[in-house]
Amino acid sequence: MMLKLFVDRMSQPSRALLIFCKVNGIDFEEVTIELFKRHHLSPEYEAINPMKQVPAIEVDGEFKLFESHAILRFLACAFPGVADHWYPADLFKRAQIDSVLDWHHSNLRRGSVGVLLNTTFGPAFGLPLNPQAAAEAEKTLSSSLARIESFWLKGDGKFLLGSSEPSIADLSLVCEIMELEALDEKLHERILGPHEKVRKWVDNTRNATQPHFDEIHAVLFQAKERLKKSRSNEGSGGTNTN
Amino acid sequence: MMLKLFVDRMSQPSRALLIFCKVNGIDFEEVTIELFKRHHLSPEYEAINPMKQVPAIEVDGEFKLFESHAILRFLACAFPGVADHWYPADLFKRAQIDSVLDWHHSNLRRGSVGVLLNTTFGPAFGLPLNPQAAAEAEKTLSSSLARIESFWLKGDGKFLLGSSEPSIADLSLVCEIMELEALDEKLHERILGPHEKVRKWVDNTRNATQPHFDEIHAVLFQAKERLKKSRSNEGSGGTNTN
Repeated sequence: MMLKLFVDRMSQPSRALLIFCKVNGIDFEEVTIELFKRHHLSPEYEAINPMKQVPAIEVDGEFKLFESHAILRFLACAFPGVADHWYPADLFKRAQIDSVLDWHHSNLRRGSVGVLLNTTFGPAFGLPLNPQAAAEAEKTLSSSLARIESFWLKGDGKFLLGSSEPSIADLSLVCEIMELEALDEKLHERILGPHEKVRKWVDNTRNATQPHFDEIHAVLFQAKERLKKSRSNEGSGGTNTN
Repeated sequence: MMLKLFVDRMSQPSRALLIFCKVNGIDFEEVTIELFKRHHLSPEYEAINPMKQVPAIEVDGEFKLFESHAILRFLACAFPGVADHWYPADLFKRAQIDSVLDWHHSNLRRGSVGVLLNTTFGPAFGLPLNPQAAAEAEKTLSSSLARIESFWLKGDGKFLLGSSEPSIADLSLVCEIMELEALDEKLHERILGPHEKVRKWVDNTRNATQPHFDEIHAVLFQAKERLKKSRSNEGSGGTNTN
């Protein structure tokens, strides 16, 4: 199967997909669609994904698919080398992973994207920063993190649902939370600080997917340093162009 | 398998689940959790679904599951009598249905719930009506309906993805759109009026699932009549208590 991934490593679901393929030895061609350069809005990319979002995949030059959770489910089933724990064949276990993934979209992801756009990345997409929307999104995000801690991570398992090995849900949610690294340090501490169990689980997922986890996140860490420098310049009366 | 469905027929994902079980001859016990009476917030129900939402299921008094898409996937796979078209075993077809379902949560559902809460149902949950939030949600809803028409319903198939038979995605999205029946008639016409192809597909899904579709929607149609009467009383100087 010839697999093309249309991704931007600055996008959290793109990273989940890249790490998944690398960890599972799935061969692919990485096609970068730079969001900050609006490449996702080009007519060429619209032919791949009419919803103009990353990630998307193309299989054997023909079959196209978007929505990161659908892609992760598909790859886990279509490539026989993928270990069962990523998306178990057992219907009861699989259903619980589906439940986490569906919950993610309406809760953690909604909060996280709202905070990131309205405090940090909005201007890069031509959107104003909106403090009121940021505050509302932070509530959703914080309550989602609390839910992860009290429910999805309850018990002694290293991963979601009390599991001893990661699933596509761990990878998807952890990549979402990693995106918060781009936030101002004080805001990051305010949001993640109270959730030790979440931070430990992020570490577990990182450790279970190394060295790919750090390799794929390198772009985000570089962006974090640039943003930090730019904020510190602003604070000392410098400009963004220094 | 002993199946309990915790549902409220006024909730669109609850209805999708009920219709799915009835059409496929799946035996179940219906446990009504009345949202308007806040029964979903009770400690008893929290033990079933800690996220305090309907629907949820319980299998053999033990296995609990929430998130309607996860439940529909699970039932389609766990009950051998369910026809393949509802959630095909073919990985490519299945992946596309997953893609529709995931897209639904961040687009159509988000718009629809925003419009319904901020124009109609908010006060029943102790929330104010918010015209600005309603206007924003209407944009999301209208662009989602346009997307369904131009992309998911492209071609000549009677159902989503050019299919000749319905899937769990048809049922889930159509039940979402049916909830808009509760809106004021002018608003309903403004939102659905421009989308003839969507209205035809709603009819196709209804016809493919009768008589269960109408039976399960009866509560919604009754609510629609009550709301209509109440609006007309308000318009003629009457009150809600007439």
